[in-house]
Amino acid sequence: MRDAYHDELEALTDRLVEMTRLVRSAISRGTTALLDADLQLAESVISADEEVDRNHRELERDIYELMATQQPVAVDLRVVITALRMASDLERMGDLAEHIAKIARMRHPDSAIPASVRDTFVEMGAIAERIVTKAGVCISERDTEAAKELEADDDAMDRLHRRLFRVLLSKDWDHGIEPAIDITLAGRYYERYADHAVRVARDVVYLVTGTRENGN
Amino acid sequence: MRDAYHDELEALTDRLVEMTRLVRSAISRGTTALLDADLQLAESVISADEEVDRNHRELERDIYELMATQQPVAVDLRVVITALRMASDLERMGDLAEHIAKIARMRHPDSAIPASVRDTFVEMGAIAERIVTKAGVCISERDTEAAKELEADDDAMDRLHRRLFRVLLSKDWDHGIEPAIDITLAGRYYERYADHAVRVARDVVYLVTGTRENGN
Repeated sequence: MRDAYHDELEALTDRLVEMTRLVRSAISRGTTALLDADLQLAESVISADEEVDRNHRELERDIYELMATQQPVAVDLRVVITALRMASDLERMGDLAEHIAKIARMRHPDSAIPASVRDTFVEMGAIAERIVTKAGVCISERDTEAAKELEADDDAMDRLHRRLFRVLLSKDWDHGIEPAIDITLAGRYYERYADHAVRVARDVVYLVTGTRENGN
Repeated sequence: MRDAYHDELEALTDRLVEMTRLVRSAISRGTTALLDADLQLAESVISADEEVDRNHRELERDIYELMATQQPVAVDLRVVITALRMASDLERMGDLAEHIAKIARMRHPDSAIPASVRDTFVEMGAIAERIVTKAGVCISERDTEAAKELEADDDAMDRLHRRLFRVLLSKDWDHGIEPAIDITLAGRYYERYADHAVRVARDVVYLVTGTRENGN
Protein backbone atom coordinates (compact mmCIF):
# COMPACT_ATOMS: atom_id res chain seq x y z
CA MET A 1 0.00 0.00 0.00
CA ARG A 2 1.15 3.52 -0.89
CA ASP A 3 0.79 6.48 1.38
CA ALA A 4 0.75 10.17 0.51
CA TYR A 5 4.43 10.52 1.39
CA HIS A 6 5.54 7.81 -1.01
CA ASP A 7 3.24 9.19 -3.70
CA GLU A 8 5.10 12.47 -3.30
CA LEU A 9 8.45 10.75 -3.72
CA GLU A 10 7.11 9.02 -6.83
CA ALA A 11 5.89 12.35 -8.17
CA LEU A 12 9.47 13.67 -8.03
CA THR A 13 10.49 10.96 -10.47
CA ASP A 14 7.65 11.84 -12.84
CA ARG A 15 8.63 15.48 -12.75
CA LEU A 16 12.27 14.68 -13.50
CA VAL A 17 11.24 12.50 -16.44
CA GLU A 18 9.06 15.35 -17.67
CA MET A 19 12.12 17.63 -17.49
CA THR A 20 14.11 15.17 -19.62
CA ARG A 21 11.30 15.36 -22.21
CA LEU A 22 11.38 19.13 -22.23
CA VAL A 23 15.16 19.41 -22.60
CA ARG A 24 15.14 16.66 -25.24
CA SER A 25 12.64 18.65 -27.27
CA ALA A 26 14.75 21.78 -26.73
CA ILE A 27 17.98 20.22 -28.02
CA SER A 28 16.17 18.55 -30.92
CA ARG A 29 14.55 21.78 -32.08
CA GLY A 30 17.66 23.80 -31.22
CA THR A 31 19.77 21.59 -33.48
CA THR A 32 17.32 21.96 -36.36
CA ALA A 33 17.20 25.72 -35.83
CA LEU A 34 20.99 25.84 -35.92
CA LEU A 35 21.36 23.67 -39.02
CA ASP A 36 18.51 25.24 -41.00
CA ALA A 37 18.88 28.81 -39.75
CA ASP A 38 15.22 28.57 -38.68
CA LEU A 39 14.49 31.74 -36.73
CA GLN A 40 10.98 30.80 -35.66
CA LEU A 41 12.16 27.47 -34.28
CA ALA A 42 15.07 29.17 -32.51
CA GLU A 43 12.66 31.63 -30.87
CA SER A 44 10.42 28.79 -29.76
CA VAL A 45 13.34 27.04 -28.05
CA ILE A 46 14.40 30.25 -26.34
CA SER A 47 10.93 31.00 -25.01
CA ALA A 48 10.27 27.36 -24.02
CA ASP A 49 13.23 27.41 -21.62
CA GLU A 50 11.00 29.25 -19.17
CA GLU A 51 8.96 26.04 -18.83
CA VAL A 52 12.10 24.08 -17.94
CA ASP A 53 13.03 26.73 -15.38
CA ARG A 54 9.52 26.66 -13.92
CA ASN A 55 9.65 22.86 -13.60
CA HIS A 56 13.00 23.21 -11.85
CA ARG A 57 11.70 25.79 -9.40
CA GLU A 58 8.58 23.75 -8.63
CA LEU A 59 10.63 20.60 -8.14
CA GLU A 60 12.95 22.40 -5.75
CA ARG A 61 10.01 23.82 -3.85
CA ASP A 62 8.35 20.38 -3.60
CA ILE A 63 11.57 18.81 -2.41
CA TYR A 64 12.14 21.44 0.26
CA GLU A 65 8.57 21.03 1.48
CA LEU A 66 8.90 17.28 1.51
CA MET A 67 12.15 17.47 3.47
CA ALA A 68 10.76 19.95 5.94
CA THR A 69 7.49 18.10 6.57
CA GLN A 70 8.47 14.45 6.17
CA GLN A 71 12.14 14.42 7.19
CA PRO A 72 13.05 11.53 4.91
CA VAL A 73 15.84 9.19 6.04
CA ALA A 74 18.01 6.47 4.50
CA VAL A 75 16.97 5.60 0.93
CA ASP A 76 14.25 8.23 0.83
CA LEU A 77 16.75 10.92 1.81
CA ARG A 78 19.02 9.75 -1.00
CA VAL A 79 16.07 10.00 -3.40
CA VAL A 80 15.32 13.62 -2.58
CA ILE A 81 18.92 14.81 -2.45
CA THR A 82 19.62 13.14 -5.76
CA ALA A 83 16.45 14.58 -7.28
CA LEU A 84 17.71 18.05 -6.36
CA ARG A 85 20.99 17.41 -8.17
CA MET A 86 19.31 15.91 -11.22
CA ALA A 87 16.85 18.78 -11.49
CA SER A 88 19.75 21.20 -11.43
CA ASP A 89 21.57 19.32 -14.21
CA LEU A 90 18.43 19.13 -16.33
CA GLU A 91 17.79 22.83 -15.88
CA ARG A 92 21.32 23.48 -17.12
CA MET A 93 20.77 21.25 -20.14
CA GLY A 94 17.78 23.43 -21.01
CA ASP A 95 20.03 26.50 -20.81
CA LEU A 96 22.57 24.92 -23.14
CA ALA A 97 19.89 24.07 -25.72
CA GLU A 98 18.75 27.69 -25.44
CA HIS A 99 22.33 28.91 -26.01
CA ILE A 100 22.46 26.85 -29.21
CA ALA A 101 19.18 28.37 -30.38
CA LYS A 102 20.58 31.83 -29.63
CA ILE A 103 23.53 31.21 -31.95
CA ALA A 104 21.03 30.30 -34.69
CA ARG A 105 19.06 33.48 -33.98
CA MET A 106 22.16 35.69 -33.93
CA ARG A 107 23.29 34.55 -37.39
CA HIS A 108 19.86 34.41 -39.03
CA PRO A 109 19.19 34.61 -42.00
CA ASP A 110 22.63 33.06 -42.49
CA SER A 111 23.42 29.66 -41.09
CA ALA A 112 26.08 29.57 -38.35
CA ILE A 113 27.13 26.13 -39.59
CA PRO A 114 29.20 25.82 -42.80
CA ALA A 115 28.73 22.68 -44.92
CA SER A 116 32.06 21.22 -43.80
CA VAL A 117 30.87 20.72 -40.20
CA ARG A 118 27.18 20.17 -40.87
CA ASP A 119 27.37 16.38 -40.59
CA THR A 120 29.25 16.66 -37.30
CA PHE A 121 26.53 18.84 -35.82
CA VAL A 122 23.84 16.49 -37.14
CA GLU A 123 25.58 13.69 -35.24
CA MET A 124 26.10 15.77 -32.11
CA GLY A 125 22.41 16.66 -32.12
CA ALA A 126 21.45 12.99 -32.56
CA ILE A 127 23.70 11.91 -29.69
CA ALA A 128 22.37 14.68 -27.47
CA GLU A 129 18.82 13.46 -28.10
CA ARG A 130 19.78 9.83 -27.52
CA ILE A 131 21.66 10.60 -24.34
CA VAL A 132 18.83 12.56 -22.74
CA THR A 133 16.31 9.90 -23.79
CA LYS A 134 18.45 7.32 -22.00
CA ALA A 135 18.79 9.60 -18.99
CA GLY A 136 14.98 9.66 -18.86
CA VAL A 137 14.88 5.84 -18.97
CA CYS A 138 17.53 5.69 -16.25
CA ILE A 139 15.38 7.86 -14.02
CA SER A 140 12.01 6.24 -14.70
CA GLU A 141 13.20 2.61 -14.65
CA ARG A 142 16.13 3.02 -12.23
CA ASP A 143 18.06 1.37 -15.02
CA THR A 144 21.80 1.19 -14.30
CA GLU A 145 22.54 -0.60 -17.60
CA ALA A 146 21.22 2.37 -19.58
CA ALA A 147 23.49 4.51 -17.41
CA LYS A 148 26.51 2.58 -18.68
CA GLU A 149 25.44 2.90 -22.33
CA LEU A 150 25.15 6.59 -21.83
CA GLU A 151 28.85 6.85 -20.93
CA ALA A 152 29.66 5.42 -24.38
CA ASP A 153 27.44 8.03 -26.01
CA ASP A 154 29.33 10.69 -24.08
CA ASP A 155 32.64 9.35 -25.43
CA ALA A 156 31.19 9.57 -28.96
CA MET A 157 30.20 13.17 -28.27
CA ASP A 158 33.75 13.98 -27.13
CA ARG A 159 35.15 12.49 -30.35
CA LEU A 160 32.82 14.63 -32.46
CA HIS A 161 33.83 17.65 -30.39
CA ARG A 162 37.51 17.00 -31.16
CA ARG A 163 36.64 16.48 -34.84
CA LEU A 164 35.21 20.00 -34.91
CA PHE A 165 38.54 21.46 -33.82
CA ARG A 166 40.39 19.48 -36.47
CA VAL A 167 38.15 20.97 -39.17
CA LEU A 168 38.53 24.49 -37.74
CA LEU A 169 42.32 24.15 -37.65
CA SER A 170 42.77 22.49 -41.04
CA LYS A 171 44.28 24.53 -43.86
CA ASP A 172 41.01 24.08 -45.80
CA TRP A 173 39.10 26.26 -43.33
CA ASP A 174 38.16 29.36 -45.29
CA HIS A 175 35.18 30.73 -43.37
CA GLY A 176 37.12 33.09 -41.15
CA ILE A 177 36.82 33.90 -37.47
CA GLU A 178 33.11 34.45 -36.84
CA PRO A 179 31.89 30.95 -37.77
CA ALA A 180 34.92 29.54 -35.92
CA ILE A 181 33.73 31.28 -32.73
CA ASP A 182 30.14 30.08 -33.23
CA ILE A 183 31.27 26.51 -33.82
CA THR A 184 33.64 26.57 -30.84
CA LEU A 185 30.82 27.70 -28.56
CA ALA A 186 28.13 25.47 -30.05
CA GLY A 187 30.47 22.47 -29.83
CA ARG A 188 31.14 23.28 -26.21
CA TYR A 189 27.38 23.50 -25.49
CA TYR A 190 26.69 20.05 -26.96
CA GLU A 191 29.60 18.58 -25.05
CA ARG A 192 28.40 20.09 -21.76
CA TYR A 193 24.83 18.98 -22.48
CA ALA A 194 26.10 15.39 -22.70
CA ASP A 195 28.22 15.83 -19.54
CA HIS A 196 25.17 16.87 -17.55
CA ALA A 197 23.19 13.89 -18.88
CA VAL A 198 26.03 11.65 -17.68
CA ARG A 199 25.84 13.23 -14.23
CA VAL A 200 22.11 12.49 -14.15
CA ALA A 201 22.76 8.86 -15.08
CA ARG A 202 25.48 8.55 -12.46
CA ASP A 203 23.07 9.91 -9.88
CA VAL A 204 20.64 7.13 -10.81
CA VAL A 205 23.42 4.57 -10.28
CA TYR A 206 24.15 6.17 -6.92
CA LEU A 207 20.47 6.00 -6.05
CA VAL A 208 20.29 2.32 -6.87
CA THR A 209 23.65 1.17 -5.51
CA GLY A 210 24.34 3.71 -2.78
CA THR A 211 27.90 4.23 -3.99
CA ARG A 212 29.62 6.61 -6.36
CA GLU A 213 32.41 5.58 -8.67
CA ASN A 214 33.86 9.07 -8.71
CA GLY A 215 33.46 12.57 -7.34
CA ASN A 216 31.16 13.76 -10.07
CA MET B 1 26.04 26.95 24.43
CA ARG B 2 27.02 24.99 21.37
CA ASP B 3 26.40 21.30 20.91
CA ALA B 4 28.14 18.85 18.61
CA TYR B 5 25.37 19.15 16.02
CA HIS B 6 25.74 22.91 15.70
CA ASP B 7 29.51 22.56 15.62
CA GLU B 8 29.04 20.28 12.61
CA LEU B 9 26.86 22.85 10.89
CA GLU B 10 29.51 25.50 11.59
CA ALA B 11 32.19 23.20 10.18
CA LEU B 12 30.30 23.12 6.87
CA THR B 13 30.75 26.87 6.59
CA ASP B 14 34.48 26.61 7.33
CA ARG B 15 34.88 23.94 4.68
CA LEU B 16 33.02 26.04 2.09
CA VAL B 17 35.21 29.04 2.87
CA GLU B 18 38.26 26.80 2.49
CA MET B 19 36.96 25.78 -0.95
CA THR B 20 36.66 29.45 -1.96
CA ARG B 21 40.34 29.87 -0.97
CA LEU B 22 41.38 26.90 -3.06
CA VAL B 23 39.48 27.98 -6.18
CA ARG B 24 40.69 31.56 -5.73
CA SER B 25 44.28 30.36 -5.72
CA ALA B 26 43.50 28.18 -8.76
CA ILE B 27 42.09 31.03 -10.84
CA SER B 28 44.86 33.39 -9.73
CA ARG B 29 47.64 30.98 -10.70
CA GLY B 30 45.71 29.80 -13.79
CA THR B 31 45.52 33.37 -15.06
CA THR B 32 49.24 33.93 -14.55
CA ALA B 33 50.00 30.61 -16.26
CA LEU B 34 47.83 31.65 -19.20
CA LEU B 35 49.31 35.14 -19.53
CA ASP B 36 52.96 34.14 -19.01
CA ALA B 37 52.83 30.71 -20.71
CA ASP B 38 54.13 29.29 -17.42
CA LEU B 39 54.02 25.51 -17.80
CA GLN B 40 55.05 24.69 -14.25
CA LEU B 41 52.35 26.93 -12.82
CA ALA B 42 49.78 25.47 -15.22
CA GLU B 43 50.68 21.94 -14.09
CA SER B 44 50.38 22.96 -10.45
CA VAL B 45 46.85 24.30 -11.03
CA ILE B 46 45.86 21.13 -12.88
CA SER B 47 47.14 18.81 -10.16
CA ALA B 48 45.76 20.99 -7.33
CA ASP B 49 42.21 20.53 -8.63
CA GLU B 50 42.22 17.11 -6.98
CA GLU B 51 42.26 18.91 -3.62
CA VAL B 52 39.17 20.89 -4.58
CA ASP B 53 37.44 17.69 -5.67
CA ARG B 54 38.41 15.95 -2.45
CA ASN B 55 37.03 18.83 -0.39
CA HIS B 56 33.82 18.59 -2.39
CA ARG B 57 33.50 14.84 -1.82
CA GLU B 58 34.19 15.17 1.89
CA LEU B 59 31.71 18.01 2.24
CA GLU B 60 29.03 15.97 0.47
CA ARG B 61 29.78 12.97 2.67
CA ASP B 62 29.60 15.10 5.84
CA ILE B 63 26.32 16.63 4.73
CA TYR B 64 24.75 13.27 3.95
CA GLU B 65 25.84 11.93 7.32
CA LEU B 66 24.55 15.01 9.08
CA MET B 67 21.20 14.73 7.33
CA ALA B 68 20.88 11.04 8.02
CA THR B 69 21.83 11.24 11.67
CA GLN B 70 20.50 14.65 12.74
CA GLN B 71 17.55 15.17 10.41
CA PRO B 72 17.88 18.95 10.40
CA VAL B 73 14.70 20.99 9.99
CA ALA B 74 13.79 24.61 9.22
CA VAL B 75 16.81 26.91 9.05
CA ASP B 76 19.28 24.08 9.65
CA LEU B 77 17.82 22.14 6.73
CA ARG B 78 18.23 25.22 4.56
CA VAL B 79 21.87 25.46 5.68
CA VAL B 80 22.75 21.92 4.64
CA ILE B 81 20.84 21.93 1.34
CA THR B 82 22.41 25.24 0.42
CA ALA B 83 25.86 24.00 1.43
CA LEU B 84 25.42 21.11 -1.02
CA ARG B 85 24.63 23.52 -3.83
CA MET B 86 27.48 25.87 -2.97
CA ALA B 87 29.98 23.04 -2.76
CA SER B 88 28.90 21.89 -6.21
CA ASP B 89 29.34 25.40 -7.65
CA LEU B 90 32.76 25.78 -6.04
CA GLU B 91 33.87 22.41 -7.36
CA ARG B 92 32.86 23.57 -10.84
CA MET B 93 34.83 26.81 -10.40
CA GLY B 94 37.88 24.67 -9.69
CA ASP B 95 37.28 22.77 -12.93
CA LEU B 96 37.05 26.02 -14.88
CA ALA B 97 40.34 27.30 -13.44
CA GLU B 98 41.85 23.95 -14.41
CA HIS B 99 40.51 24.31 -17.97
CA ILE B 100 42.23 27.69 -18.22
CA ALA B 101 45.51 26.17 -17.02
CA LYS B 102 45.11 23.41 -19.63
CA ILE B 103 44.91 25.99 -22.42
CA ALA B 104 48.19 27.46 -21.13
CA ARG B 105 49.74 23.99 -21.08
CA MET B 106 48.49 23.11 -24.56
CA ARG B 107 50.08 26.20 -26.14
CA HIS B 108 53.33 26.19 -24.15
CA PRO B 109 55.99 27.41 -24.91
CA ASP B 110 53.85 29.90 -26.87
CA SER B 111 51.34 32.10 -25.08
CA ALA B 112 47.69 31.46 -25.95
CA ILE B 113 47.00 35.15 -25.40
CA PRO B 114 48.07 37.70 -28.02
CA ALA B 115 49.04 41.18 -26.83
CA SER B 116 45.80 42.73 -28.12
CA VAL B 117 43.68 40.85 -25.56
CA ARG B 118 46.21 40.59 -22.76
CA ASP B 119 44.79 43.51 -20.77
CA THR B 120 41.30 42.07 -21.04
CA PHE B 121 42.43 38.75 -19.58
CA VAL B 122 44.35 40.55 -16.83
CA GLU B 123 41.09 42.27 -15.90
CA MET B 124 39.03 39.08 -16.18
CA GLY B 125 41.48 37.32 -13.88
CA ALA B 126 41.35 40.19 -11.37
CA ILE B 127 37.54 40.18 -11.36
CA ALA B 128 37.46 36.40 -10.97
CA GLU B 129 39.69 36.69 -7.91
CA ARG B 130 37.65 39.54 -6.49
CA ILE B 131 34.36 37.77 -7.04
CA VAL B 132 35.42 34.54 -5.34
CA THR B 133 36.94 36.49 -2.44
CA LYS B 134 33.59 38.21 -1.98
CA ALA B 135 31.79 34.88 -2.26
CA GLY B 136 33.98 33.66 0.61
CA VAL B 137 33.05 36.73 2.68
CA CYS B 138 29.37 36.17 1.85
CA ILE B 139 29.61 32.62 3.18
CA SER B 140 31.66 33.32 6.30
CA GLU B 141 29.88 36.52 7.35
CA ARG B 142 26.43 35.74 5.90
CA ASP B 143 26.91 39.10 4.26
CA THR B 144 24.09 39.92 1.82
CA GLU B 145 25.62 43.32 0.94
CA ALA B 146 28.73 41.64 -0.44
CA ALA B 147 26.36 39.44 -2.43
CA LYS B 148 24.95 42.54 -4.15
CA GLU B 149 28.41 43.90 -4.96
CA LEU B 150 29.26 40.60 -6.53
CA GLU B 151 26.47 41.00 -9.08
CA ALA B 152 28.15 44.21 -10.26
CA ASP B 153 31.45 42.36 -10.65
CA ASP B 154 29.63 39.77 -12.72
CA ASP B 155 28.29 42.50 -15.01
CA ALA B 156 31.85 43.81 -15.43
CA MET B 157 32.96 40.28 -16.34
CA ASP B 158 30.22 40.06 -18.98
CA ARG B 159 31.37 43.37 -20.48
CA LEU B 160 34.96 42.12 -20.72
CA HIS B 161 33.69 38.91 -22.29
CA ARG B 162 31.87 40.88 -24.99
CA ARG B 163 34.99 43.02 -25.51
CA LEU B 164 36.93 39.85 -26.35
CA PHE B 165 34.55 39.07 -29.20
CA ARG B 166 34.86 42.60 -30.55
CA VAL B 167 38.64 42.20 -30.73
CA LEU B 168 38.36 38.76 -32.35
CA LEU B 169 35.94 40.07 -34.97
CA SER B 170 37.73 43.33 -35.73
CA LYS B 171 39.53 43.68 -39.04
CA ASP B 172 42.80 44.11 -37.14
CA TRP B 173 42.71 40.50 -35.90
CA ASP B 174 45.64 38.82 -37.62
CA HIS B 175 46.36 35.85 -35.36
CA GLY B 176 44.22 33.35 -37.23
CA ILE B 177 41.89 30.64 -35.98
CA GLU B 178 43.79 28.81 -33.24
CA PRO B 179 44.21 31.73 -30.82
CA ALA B 180 40.60 32.74 -31.61
CA ILE B 181 39.41 29.30 -30.42
CA ASP B 182 41.58 29.49 -27.28
CA ILE B 183 40.33 32.96 -26.45
CA THR B 184 36.71 32.01 -27.09
CA LEU B 185 36.99 29.07 -24.70
CA ALA B 186 39.07 30.87 -22.06
CA GLY B 187 36.65 33.81 -22.13
CA ARG B 188 33.77 31.42 -21.63
CA TYR B 189 35.53 29.79 -18.66
CA TYR B 190 36.05 33.12 -16.89
CA GLU B 191 32.46 34.10 -17.53
CA ARG B 192 31.15 30.78 -16.16
CA TYR B 193 33.49 31.05 -13.15
CA ALA B 194 31.87 34.36 -12.28
CA ASP B 195 28.38 32.93 -12.87
CA HIS B 196 29.00 30.17 -10.36
CA ALA B 197 30.31 32.67 -7.82
CA VAL B 198 27.09 34.64 -8.28
CA ARG B 199 25.08 31.49 -7.60
CA VAL B 200 27.03 30.97 -4.40
CA ALA B 201 26.30 34.52 -3.29
CA ARG B 202 22.60 34.16 -4.15
CA ASP B 203 22.51 31.01 -2.05
CA VAL B 204 23.85 33.02 0.88
CA VAL B 205 21.07 35.56 0.37
CA TYR B 206 18.59 32.70 0.28
CA LEU B 207 20.08 31.32 3.49
CA VAL B 208 19.75 34.63 5.27
CA THR B 209 16.39 35.79 3.90
CA GLY B 210 14.68 32.51 3.08
CA THR B 211 13.60 33.76 -0.33
CA ARG B 212 15.03 33.65 -3.83
CA GLU B 213 14.82 36.52 -6.24
CA ASN B 214 15.00 34.18 -9.23
CA GLY B 215 15.21 30.56 -10.26
CA ASN B 216 18.97 30.39 -10.17
